[in-house]
Amino acid sequence: MAKIFAVNAGSSSLKFQLFDMPEEKVITKGLIERIGLKDSVFTISVGTDRHKETKDIPNHEEAVALLLDRLISLGVIQSLNEIEGVGHRVVHGGEVFSDSALINQDTLKKIEDLSELAPLHNPANVTGIKEFQKALPDVPHVAVFDTAFHQTMPENSFLYSLPYEYYKEYGIRKYGFHGTSHKYVSERAAELLERPLSQLRLISCHLGNGASIAAIKGGKSLDTSMGFTPLAGVTMGTRSGNIDPALIPYVMEKTGKTADEVIDVLNKKSGMLGVSGFSSDLRDIELEANNGNHRAELALDIFADRIHKYLGSYAARMSGVDAIIFTAGIGENSATIRAKVLNGLEFMGVYWDPDLNKIRGQEVFVNYPHSPVKVIVIPTNEEIMIARDVVRLSK
Amino acid sequence: MAKIFAVNAGSSSLKFQLFDMPEEKVITKGLIERIGLKDSVFTISVGTDRHKETKDIPNHEEAVALLLDRLISLGVIQSLNEIEGVGHRVVHGGEVFSDSALINQDTLKKIEDLSELAPLHNPANVTGIKEFQKALPDVPHVAVFDTAFHQTMPENSFLYSLPYEYYKEYGIRKYGFHGTSHKYVSERAAELLERPLSQLRLISCHLGNGASIAAIKGGKSLDTSMGFTPLAGVTMGTRSGNIDPALIPYVMEKTGKTADEVIDVLNKKSGMLGVSGFSSDLRDIELEANNGNHRAELALDIFADRIHKYLGSYAARMSGVDAIIFTAGIGENSATIRAKVLNGLEFMGVYWDPDLNKIRGQEVFVNYPHSPVKVIVIPTNEEIMIARDVVRLSK
Repeated sequence: MAKIFAVNAGSSSLKFQLFDMPEEKVITKGLIERIGLKDSVFTISVGTDRHKETKDIPNHEEAVALLLDRLISLGVIQSLNEIEGVGHRVVHGGEVFSDSALINQDTLKKIEDLSELAPLHNPANVTGIKEFQKALPDVPHVAVFDTAFHQTMPENSFLYSLPYEYYKEYGIRKYGFHGTSHKYVSERAAELLERPLSQLRLISCHLGNGASIAAIKGGKSLDTSMGFTPLAGVTMGTRSGNIDPALIPYVMEKTGKTADEVIDVLNKKSGMLGVSGFSSDLRDIELEANNGNHRAELALDIFADRIHKYLGSYAARMSGVDAIIFTAGIGENSATIRAKVLNGLEFMGVYWDPDLNKIRGQEVFVNYPHSPVKVIVIPTNEEIMIARDVVRLSK
Repeated sequence: MAKIFAVNAGSSSLKFQLFDMPEEKVITKGLIERIGLKDSVFTISVGTDRHKETKDIPNHEEAVALLLDRLISLGVIQSLNEIEGVGHRVVHGGEVFSDSALINQDTLKKIEDLSELAPLHNPANVTGIKEFQKALPDVPHVAVFDTAFHQTMPENSFLYSLPYEYYKEYGIRKYGFHGTSHKYVSERAAELLERPLSQLRLISCHLGNGASIAAIKGGKSLDTSMGFTPLAGVTMGTRSGNIDPALIPYVMEKTGKTADEVIDVLNKKSGMLGVSGFSSDLRDIELEANNGNHRAELALDIFADRIHKYLGSYAARMSGVDAIIFTAGIGENSATIRAKVLNGLEFMGVYWDPDLNKIRGQEVFVNYPHSPVKVIVIPTNEEIMIARDVVRLSK
């Protein structure tokens, strides 16, 4: 029995889960927040308890040291030798990585080189990898990329209608994100449907604070809503999704902002936050909409409309669809959004049951039994995908 | 019998058609090009002949004077008194105009004020109006807006997921264009289908050098692919359509261009021209694709893919579709593009006949008789819509 870490290092955070593999049992999980800031917070579950401590953690090196120390002092493991591998979530694998990869000098260099495509994420991911490598030098480390699953997209999906040399010279193309999640739920859907993944046309809706839709045919990503960056596609909590590109200079002129500042608004102050004017959190917005707040209703309607249209769009892309999957925070929990998204899709064979749709946060078929298109809520599990890839690639 | 002008004034061009109304008979039509440049060209059809002359036409005032002079000297009309009204195509009516409007001081001022939203087009349209008003002061002049038809779009279609104040303060929203064409073909489709427009769900594909798709329910535009400007939506001849907005600053940094210069590339050097690398003209691209040029094939596939996905998207928007309409240069003439766009839509009830699809440039049903969704090619006629509105609003 091997203990495998799945970690996700952000610029000021570190999420982790420790698995017993191949049983896929979660031994512990937790989070370190505010790394590099005052009063960092370390949270870890131990059995049914939750251990929390607040102290200054100046950098990722100390965050990793603290985590490994507590694993032993809290009795989760007896010795670091029990840990047999570490899987690292990496946001951007560019066109270099179409699968997870065992980390060596060469891999790490490539991930660093890809920082230009994900300047906010890859450097933090690299820091996480380096610190865990220092602390656990004798076990395999594996990088699992958010983009890798979408590398199967054909040229006519991933190319923008821009001067072709922008692709060749600057790597400008659609990469897509949330790949590990889309892959997990599509594989799980095949199991639940008891049909081979290779024969299925699936639309996966990963709806969290970030949101993306993927058209998955025969287990391969054929198209996805996010683009060169995670800003593109549908409306999100704080992100605009697609807009008329000509708006960038128009907003610059109107507001006196630089292009980068406008993109910052599009990333952080738009989406449901921008429309509602008060929150990016769907739960707040649903509450206010129930109280008759028009802009809250509008935020819900716009969010749902954009996803709804992607369902039609991706059904067309695959000449029909066998199942629609909802996952991630909103996809798993919001019956309201699922209902709005699914409404009026009978023309493409979607018949769903409002009662079943009320179920939250668990695997459930929402469609009527006779519905040609199945609708499945599947809680995502990117961590288990990471742990599985560590096992697969360390052999 | 009234003679009515339909005119379209660009910054260096003037297109015109003269109708006998209400018979809707075209008396003459033509074009003045290169106004303000050396060797301007004036072309006009007289009966079955085509009259062409080349001379310097320094401004729109002289262009209008020349046109009216030639109408008489070429014997098209006997006297200017026969002309009983002039309809002017105006690109942008903002939120002010949801219908065509009789032009008076107030209307003209409003059109001028909207120039900010269409800096390349409205000022030229205004120049055209003023010069025709000077030359024909005693007849009604009517403005017909490209945006007016789309003013029926609901908030959840026209609002971007941006800070709400951008809409309130700067008028940032989806306006949509090609409205006169979408309106014409949707009305004509109802006639051809022998069903009331009020009961129809139509998807109109206006595919010319500019291209836009509209979801039209009960005769009203419900959604459309173009946005704040005509840059948004599907791939076009030289326009990119939607891209990840975060690409603007990325391209700026890579190329040293300003934001405006990048948008210029997106408007003029992207689309099928950008992908193919050699032409924005679909006929050239189809030829080269037939010769096995990969990038030409790619340009066709990308163009068709984006439209194909809008069909699914707008079918979802209207909970199904009764008919799909193809119009404008490419929509009317390219069997290749129509075939690629229509392929694999059986899941939403589209069954089409490859033989019927070969017909070019005329009104034809392309669907099999049993197809639940009809597919109709309808040559557009924006000019007749302009002439009709002159008659309607001059009463």
